[in-house]
Amino acid sequence: MGLGKIRVIAFDVFGTVVDWHGSITREIQSLGLPVEPGEFASSWRSGYQPAMARVSSGELGWTLIDDLHRMILDDVLAQFSIFNLDEDQKQHLNKVWHRLKPWDDSVEGLKLMKERHTICTLSNGNLGLLSNMAKNAGLPWDCILSAEVFRKYKPDPDVYLGVCQVFDVNSEETMLVAAHQSDLDAARACGLQTAYVERRDEFGKNSPKDVSSNNNNTFHARDFIDLANQLDQL
Amino acid sequence: MGLGKIRVIAFDVFGTVVDWHGSITREIQSLGLPVEPGEFASSWRSGYQPAMARVSSGELGWTLIDDLHRMILDDVLAQFSIFNLDEDQKQHLNKVWHRLKPWDDSVEGLKLMKERHTICTLSNGNLGLLSNMAKNAGLPWDCILSAEVFRKYKPDPDVYLGVCQVFDVNSEETMLVAAHQSDLDAARACGLQTAYVERRDEFGKNSPKDVSSNNNNTFHARDFIDLANQLDQL
Repeated sequence: MGLGKIRVIAFDVFGTVVDWHGSITREIQSLGLPVEPGEFASSWRSGYQPAMARVSSGELGWTLIDDLHRMILDDVLAQFSIFNLDEDQKQHLNKVWHRLKPWDDSVEGLKLMKERHTICTLSNGNLGLLSNMAKNAGLPWDCILSAEVFRKYKPDPDVYLGVCQVFDVNSEETMLVAAHQSDLDAARACGLQTAYVERRDEFGKNSPKDVSSNNNNTFHARDFIDLANQLDQL
Repeated sequence: MGLGKIRVIAFDVFGTVVDWHGSITREIQSLGLPVEPGEFASSWRSGYQPAMARVSSGELGWTLIDDLHRMILDDVLAQFSIFNLDEDQKQHLNKVWHRLKPWDDSVEGLKLMKERHTICTLSNGNLGLLSNMAKNAGLPWDCILSAEVFRKYKPDPDVYLGVCQVFDVNSEETMLVAAHQSDLDAARACGLQTAYVERRDEFGKNSPKDVSSNNNNTFHARDFIDLANQLDQL
């Protein structure tokens, strides 16, 4: 499989690099809204795939994640009967996705992998969101790539193959890292190598996720430092 | 003019951040080709604007700078009667644009400006080229933006306004930094603030450039450190 030849490592971001559930839960807590904060976070996130599906199906024209997040937020606020936020507060809350905190191992692991590889995002999040997040969190990307560049959302093959085209590398020289098997499945179908990273608490400590390994992936890692170590041993 | 509100600083790259003439001259010298190295560098670069104009006019479909550079290189090699490079050598030489060296003040100046602003590229160079250059040269971009993202070349207004859209900021909160008045003129026409940076030796020490100031620019700076200091005094 030419494992020594991985040149570009692309990372899914929400859940894989950053802890959306914990970050949003803490922000909702700090606002003192009369809701169960973790439930609010999960509801907001659960609107994400359906919203992107409306874009991919053509029902909605091309729409950035910031705008999809806002559409979902308005629904979720109504669902939780929160009517006392003004427009500025809603805009600020919507940008919590720009302020998500990385998992404890993310920054150190990325720095290790950056020594020998080109590391980039490959997220459905928009470029501004991902740039602000990187600046806030100290994520040392060589390049920020997004569905926004390709104007298609994952799992469209054009997004995965777009990474290879941007860096002028073959698909087997490119690897996707994600905490979601469906994302990895789609990347593998395009010929990319794949690494699954366990993020057991992606949906909160009370809702541990199945992090079983799948032998179809090139790597299975506990966290980014484990993955960096496995890559170093090639 | 709300000078205190500059949030995003976008940088032209070739000639402004990196020294294309010196870098290519040195690489041609090291190859020992039977040409005057500086002349070869200037000839290669002189094909750049006409090649992009062919894309902008529609004569050529969307074409990345890596591919335009290669088309020009083939012409320039013939023009200088160099016929002894094989395909691998030509591909490697073409990627000299990925290996351009920054001006002495670039990295330090960018780090200073990054403390208070979002800093990004805004170059006609493609994303892979700009990412490899940043990795080689230690350029600390928050985000790499390119004509490739907008599928238009500067000076198309969509490229300058695209920066504002990506970061969800107004044009007056956005500044273009360049060593070329024509680039700054186009940005200013879109409402961006502008900073001219003197790069007297862009075309080599033997061909010093006119670096006169233009009062229409928001800033005129000797180099990036001077510009960072001027921004700090706002």
